[in-house]
Amino acid sequence: LILIPPVLVLSLPVGNIKSSALSQLGRRTAEPAIAELMNAVLARPHLISLAAGFTDNESLPVARTRQLLEEVLCSPQAQGALQYGTTLGELPLRQLTAERLQKLDGSRGKSGVYAPENLLITHGSQQFLYMLTEALCDPGDIVLVEDPTYFVYLEILISHGIRTHGVRLKETGIDIEHLESVLKRLKRTGEIRRLKYLYLVTYFQNPSGITTSFEKKREALKLLKRFERAAGHPIYLVEDAAYRELRFAGDDVKSFLTLKGSEDRVIYTSTYSKPFATGVRVGFGLMPEPIFKVVARIKGNHDFGTSNLLQQLIARALASGHYDDHLTALRKRYAHKARVMGDALTEHFPMEVKWNTPTGGLNYWARVPANVRTGAKSKLSQLALANDVLYVPGQLCYCNDPDRKRPDNEMRLSYGNASEANIREGIKRLGSVLNKLIH
Amino acid sequence: LILIPPVLVLSLPVGNIKSSALSQLGRRTAEPAIAELMNAVLARPHLISLAAGFTDNESLPVARTRQLLEEVLCSPQAQGALQYGTTLGELPLRQLTAERLQKLDGSRGKSGVYAPENLLITHGSQQFLYMLTEALCDPGDIVLVEDPTYFVYLEILISHGIRTHGVRLKETGIDIEHLESVLKRLKRTGEIRRLKYLYLVTYFQNPSGITTSFEKKREALKLLKRFERAAGHPIYLVEDAAYRELRFAGDDVKSFLTLKGSEDRVIYTSTYSKPFATGVRVGFGLMPEPIFKVVARIKGNHDFGTSNLLQQLIARALASGHYDDHLTALRKRYAHKARVMGDALTEHFPMEVKWNTPTGGLNYWARVPANVRTGAKSKLSQLALANDVLYVPGQLCYCNDPDRKRPDNEMRLSYGNASEANIREGIKRLGSVLNKLIH
Repeated sequence: LILIPPVLVLSLPVGNIKSSALSQLGRRTAEPAIAELMNAVLARPHLISLAAGFTDNESLPVARTRQLLEEVLCSPQAQGALQYGTTLGELPLRQLTAERLQKLDGSRGKSGVYAPENLLITHGSQQFLYMLTEALCDPGDIVLVEDPTYFVYLEILISHGIRTHGVRLKETGIDIEHLESVLKRLKRTGEIRRLKYLYLVTYFQNPSGITTSFEKKREALKLLKRFERAAGHPIYLVEDAAYRELRFAGDDVKSFLTLKGSEDRVIYTSTYSKPFATGVRVGFGLMPEPIFKVVARIKGNHDFGTSNLLQQLIARALASGHYDDHLTALRKRYAHKARVMGDALTEHFPMEVKWNTPTGGLNYWARVPANVRTGAKSKLSQLALANDVLYVPGQLCYCNDPDRKRPDNEMRLSYGNASEANIREGIKRLGSVLNKLIH
Repeated sequence: LILIPPVLVLSLPVGNIKSSALSQLGRRTAEPAIAELMNAVLARPHLISLAAGFTDNESLPVARTRQLLEEVLCSPQAQGALQYGTTLGELPLRQLTAERLQKLDGSRGKSGVYAPENLLITHGSQQFLYMLTEALCDPGDIVLVEDPTYFVYLEILISHGIRTHGVRLKETGIDIEHLESVLKRLKRTGEIRRLKYLYLVTYFQNPSGITTSFEKKREALKLLKRFERAAGHPIYLVEDAAYRELRFAGDDVKSFLTLKGSEDRVIYTSTYSKPFATGVRVGFGLMPEPIFKVVARIKGNHDFGTSNLLQQLIARALASGHYDDHLTALRKRYAHKARVMGDALTEHFPMEVKWNTPTGGLNYWARVPANVRTGAKSKLSQLALANDVLYVPGQLCYCNDPDRKRPDNEMRLSYGNASEANIREGIKRLGSVLNKLIH
């Protein structure tokens, strides 16, 4: 059930030494799915990449960062910014983050759920996801993910030898009936005892762009609880809200944290890197106290704390209002770029191709007719590359679920990093390739 | 053989759910040994800590960092500093680092060993040590360490279920005869097949202050090679050179990288955080290509690359000469603080206590008579705390070696972070406590 890549063979000078010195994790940690694509980028300097998850270059807050760092380094906290801090993160940043989260959720007054004491600052939310997986999962354990889901997280799971099942996505989030049938099947086979959590990217999901409705959240949490007796331990809900603040239309949806029963079951993670500057790696995780303790210890072993300089920069950006001002501008920018891509899709893509209209995040998710493949080795992908356009093949975003084949007729198209001209030209070229293959 | 801390028990609201959802790693990851001591610091605001591995506050390069960041953010690379980079690190920093290392080693011309291609930038060298351990070690594997060694690394090993044996330290590095006898014993029992590497902190070792001589390096590498046939795989040598640049007397010693046969066996790691600013977490690892590949993939899963802003700051500090200028000043400062502590030790410590005289790094390592204990629960430690002085009990720096008891009559005394006045007063108080206990 577990995808184990071919063991990396070391070439050894000593005669009879054949076996590798690598660990199981070392052997399971595969070349990133996206690596081959990225090599294509390097080999083709004129390539238009609609694949990168990079954010918009033009709108990176260079001037604001200059000013904020100048303030940090002229403040009484300057030495602190250049010194080791605590493993958990700088208290002011943890407090600002907890308050911000509580406000986003429209929650008032004292609430233990938003306690800064249970909030850990990490080197991006990716690091949090890694450490959480380490804290909760042994090889052979099971994690449920969305179909499709964030593909780098799938690589973390594979490297830890974790089995996965996909839960279908509908327009407003996971298909609750399908979740129930997956849970029932795991209960029947007894494998539910290995189930650790359900991982959901709940806002402008990477890659599908879908936002999970609050009603779906309520139902999902209730459903997981129902199966805990069979599991013999808590089944956690991991809410990855990395794109939550990159909303440019519609209203925010309250997080899982606002639900009754969330306090000992919900693990929430998000990041300041994507909304502010991806070169500044600061993310966080908020979690029930027993999990917090363990993840914090793991963080101590990883790096005993995220760079204080970066933390003070973000804390000052939040406290000064620069962060929100930047976010307002950024949302307008992404709204515009999303429109540019949407218009190009309408103009150039054959009508057989379907796509969502995102209201936040960085991606379109397009589905081509079932007889056309989008995978890295498909004719479409090869033709696109020959025409200097790159997208993320949808297949990469599906876990290795033993109960279904990985769909191979979707693609993730990102407007995050590409310029407007490149978005238009890239979609035009892709459209022309699609027209040839479909008609 | 493996120290497994008591399983963390989750308090669960659901009736019959008793077992924890934690992973094996989660259960093994213990509260840091130093945590209890650190809590003591928080509880006693007037405490003089000679325990912290923090660097000197006064000499943190605030003005230089301001200037360098201003330059970074006014340069054509400003957007790059705020954007995602590559998982491996910024190429200019990798090149500067490889060149610097080659120069430190007095090596000239082209040398594959110092190839920037095999150099990975990490969020401090601690992160590198973590990922390397993940890449090479399974639970039950064996790592050899110095007696004593860097105690946070011991915690990484314990959390991964790795067994350890200690190799005695002499004045010029590990006791080669003892290393041989440990290897022979492992060969006899067959356990050598689980031996992955020997981990050495080779410059101004934390905690002992000892620097490994070049002759010892040559002998150690040769010895490891001799046992590879029995092991059935390469036995690596991990050289942790974190303190190498914090030298204030004597000459530099060439690294393991200069030895014949190092190219496929030596893994070298060091950091820019300690010599420049600990709030700026940038370290690196240089390693044979097959290991590099795997550790780089793991880095991708951890955080897909260290903050570009921090990397550009360090690259500019190196290229501009600011780094070296700062280092020159810093070495003078530590030389002075070491002298202050040395003088205080001579004045206040009973003559039965022995210590080294460090020529670099941040620590003195003192040995009290065998009938006095220094451990966290010892009378000495309790009296010191009652007198508001904190040191690191030597016992924490010894691995769980099944073949010896952990020595309990040493202490690490750091002059890194404490002020001169506090160094004097702290040593005076400790001396007074020691006099009471010894005489």
